[in-house]
Amino acid sequence: MQEANVRPLDMILAKRDGKSHNRAELDAFLGGYVRGTVPDYQVAAWLMAVCWRGMSDKETADLTEVMAASGEVLELGDLPHTVDKHSTGGVGDKTSLVLAPLLAAAGGTVAKMSGRGLGHTGGTIDKLESIPGYRSSLHDDEFLKQAREVGIVITGQSKELAPADGLLYALRDATGTVESLPLIASSVMSKKLAGGAHAIVLDVKVGAGAFMKTEAEARALSRAMVAIGEHAGREVRAVLSRMDEPLGFAVGNAIEVREAIACLRGEGPADLLMLCLALASPVLEASGLQHDEAHLRSLIGSGEAYARFERWIAAQGGDLHAPDALALAPDQMLVRAPRAGYVGRLDALTIGRAVGLLGGGRARKDATIDPGVGVRLHAKIGDELKAGDPVATVFHRDGHGLEAATALLTTALDIDDAAEAPPLLVGGAPA
Amino acid sequence: MQEANVRPLDMILAKRDGKSHNRAELDAFLGGYVRGTVPDYQVAAWLMAVCWRGMSDKETADLTEVMAASGEVLELGDLPHTVDKHSTGGVGDKTSLVLAPLLAAAGGTVAKMSGRGLGHTGGTIDKLESIPGYRSSLHDDEFLKQAREVGIVITGQSKELAPADGLLYALRDATGTVESLPLIASSVMSKKLAGGAHAIVLDVKVGAGAFMKTEAEARALSRAMVAIGEHAGREVRAVLSRMDEPLGFAVGNAIEVREAIACLRGEGPADLLMLCLALASPVLEASGLQHDEAHLRSLIGSGEAYARFERWIAAQGGDLHAPDALALAPDQMLVRAPRAGYVGRLDALTIGRAVGLLGGGRARKDATIDPGVGVRLHAKIGDELKAGDPVATVFHRDGHGLEAATALLTTALDIDDAAEAPPLLVGGAPA
Repeated sequence: MQEANVRPLDMILAKRDGKSHNRAELDAFLGGYVRGTVPDYQVAAWLMAVCWRGMSDKETADLTEVMAASGEVLELGDLPHTVDKHSTGGVGDKTSLVLAPLLAAAGGTVAKMSGRGLGHTGGTIDKLESIPGYRSSLHDDEFLKQAREVGIVITGQSKELAPADGLLYALRDATGTVESLPLIASSVMSKKLAGGAHAIVLDVKVGAGAFMKTEAEARALSRAMVAIGEHAGREVRAVLSRMDEPLGFAVGNAIEVREAIACLRGEGPADLLMLCLALASPVLEASGLQHDEAHLRSLIGSGEAYARFERWIAAQGGDLHAPDALALAPDQMLVRAPRAGYVGRLDALTIGRAVGLLGGGRARKDATIDPGVGVRLHAKIGDELKAGDPVATVFHRDGHGLEAATALLTTALDIDDAAEAPPLLVGGAPA
Repeated sequence: MQEANVRPLDMILAKRDGKSHNRAELDAFLGGYVRGTVPDYQVAAWLMAVCWRGMSDKETADLTEVMAASGEVLELGDLPHTVDKHSTGGVGDKTSLVLAPLLAAAGGTVAKMSGRGLGHTGGTIDKLESIPGYRSSLHDDEFLKQAREVGIVITGQSKELAPADGLLYALRDATGTVESLPLIASSVMSKKLAGGAHAIVLDVKVGAGAFMKTEAEARALSRAMVAIGEHAGREVRAVLSRMDEPLGFAVGNAIEVREAIACLRGEGPADLLMLCLALASPVLEASGLQHDEAHLRSLIGSGEAYARFERWIAAQGGDLHAPDALALAPDQMLVRAPRAGYVGRLDALTIGRAVGLLGGGRARKDATIDPGVGVRLHAKIGDELKAGDPVATVFHRDGHGLEAATALLTTALDIDDAAEAPPLLVGGAPA
């Protein structure tokens, strides 16, 4: 890419006045930022101008490709049927742990870098690290070898992957410029493009516990991310799913891996399985693989998907049979229904925060987490309860954070005279 | 002022979402910026959000008072009839040099800090420094003593005056956030409030050679600045004047002081005198002094105003009779009319830039200037010319910058088949 002869100030003025940037201009501006020649105060003003004026589809796609090209780009080209998945973040979302073995059993290659949890949402890598020995950091050659031999490898995100996004994200976080559709879409997709997979499925969460509160916002974000993928020559599918209550019954780290394993054995919660099938089908179709639901269910029923999970974990150093594997915190407390009725609200965001207070999440990026703490729900929205019925078991360690967490949990629950289980998937056909 | 318990990020989010700040919040935010605890990237994002969302009159007034209070505030309270004047910047604008002695002769006290020129506009201090010995920097006690004894003192702007404005202005300049009405108004008025005068007159320039290109913009800026002054308990008057062609005939430093002296002797250009009277009258009225035009003209006709000028310059160390006082550059070149007709355009901005190229202005704050170079016009808009008639005399030094300057000057001039002298003052009554 030839460097455009454009001053940072001119980029700010152009965006402030509602004009568009071309790719060479974005490349020069963000390249300068990554190299340290464009100061953060100029990028900050530009980010706010982007929040104000927005970006065209073409601009957003160019921005994404410039960010993806700002560091290492994984070369997965000779691996068969490379597939990837991204969730915009929810509570109790252990989907990747089920989906990856399912996709691999169906013939896909899942060579994936995944994030850690931050705020009220968990992270796949945190969950996997509740398995003793699991290596979340691999050398490039180990990474590719495991992808080829096992069909699955999932590591933490390399700092070399889309470094422009890492820098921009930190600056957006500090400057009130997170909530911009093109900036959100390009941030997600820059890492997916750099991750190298050909087919990508996006789980766009919508609801009280999600970043996108309304269906319209979630659809707009889906559309923007799919457009970026198309522009970059990738096959991208988006699925909209509700995130009002947690997914499944388990919220925490070890406890979520346990629920994922149950799901792979055909004994998991219905909503988790439904979402995994809804995500697997379009991305396998985009990869040219068999993807009908009956086939996918058979991969679980036959044990093939679970066997793939075991091979993957073992290949990456994890010991599911170690004495402390997936150990839950030893102390428990029950939260009970204060009255009879139907569960009308079971707020995912609040439950996620409660688990954070127990030590299961992190408020800052450098905090450590306690993999054993968490919450197991005994009811979901629409379930009937008698007064005193258990609603949740809290797994805590010596009462750490317990008082604040249970205070929060009681505010997460509404019991109404009538309530119905809401549909998990939003809309008909995926975008 | 009690410090508000508000995070910088919350200030950005509030403004981004179109909300208002109260004074305590602005005080904490900008106080933190001046002290270095709020980083410039957060202020930059906030500035762009202000460009986007604007500010209410109350917010703008609070912002201004917070900036004015960020450093030294001149205490002129016991001086009689303190008056100040500000121009939003024009070409050939030597008004302060005439107005200050006129106001002092009328009973006002002009104790004023003034800026240096930047870009295409000149600065009063640069002009005064073409008088050998003129001291543009005084100690506080010297400043107040001269104000009391002579009724006039004009120095360069202290770095301690409204330092928040100095910091913000530099950041705005680098982040494309200069063009925001509340930010422009608060920047001007913070220095005026800190300058301490009770009555202030604002010369708001409008036209091709001004910062405000349209009458509507200039009126909006006037209104905002007057509202700030009212909020702070000052008497503020605004006058709108055209800045399409230069004011008077002289553009440069020494040459403008010469024209100001001519004006004080009753021999100056009509437009310059008209503007000085139009600015003097409302600010003297606001100070409770005699301000009718006949009286002001008599102060010039009697020599009182010029005598006050001489006393002022001498008190501040300037020697108007030194051999090199107000010396013009020795080399001259004539620009002539290419055809017969009427001067239809004589672009102030372009002429200001041409004088800059000759060495009479500065592109950067730390550049030095040549006080002797400049342009003397021989015609104004509406004047009839024959082909070959002189339009301008260029005073240059050894041809430095001459080629580029004359190339510019020829583009500054349109000769049309018909043209009329435009009115200098805009609208009827001052705001």
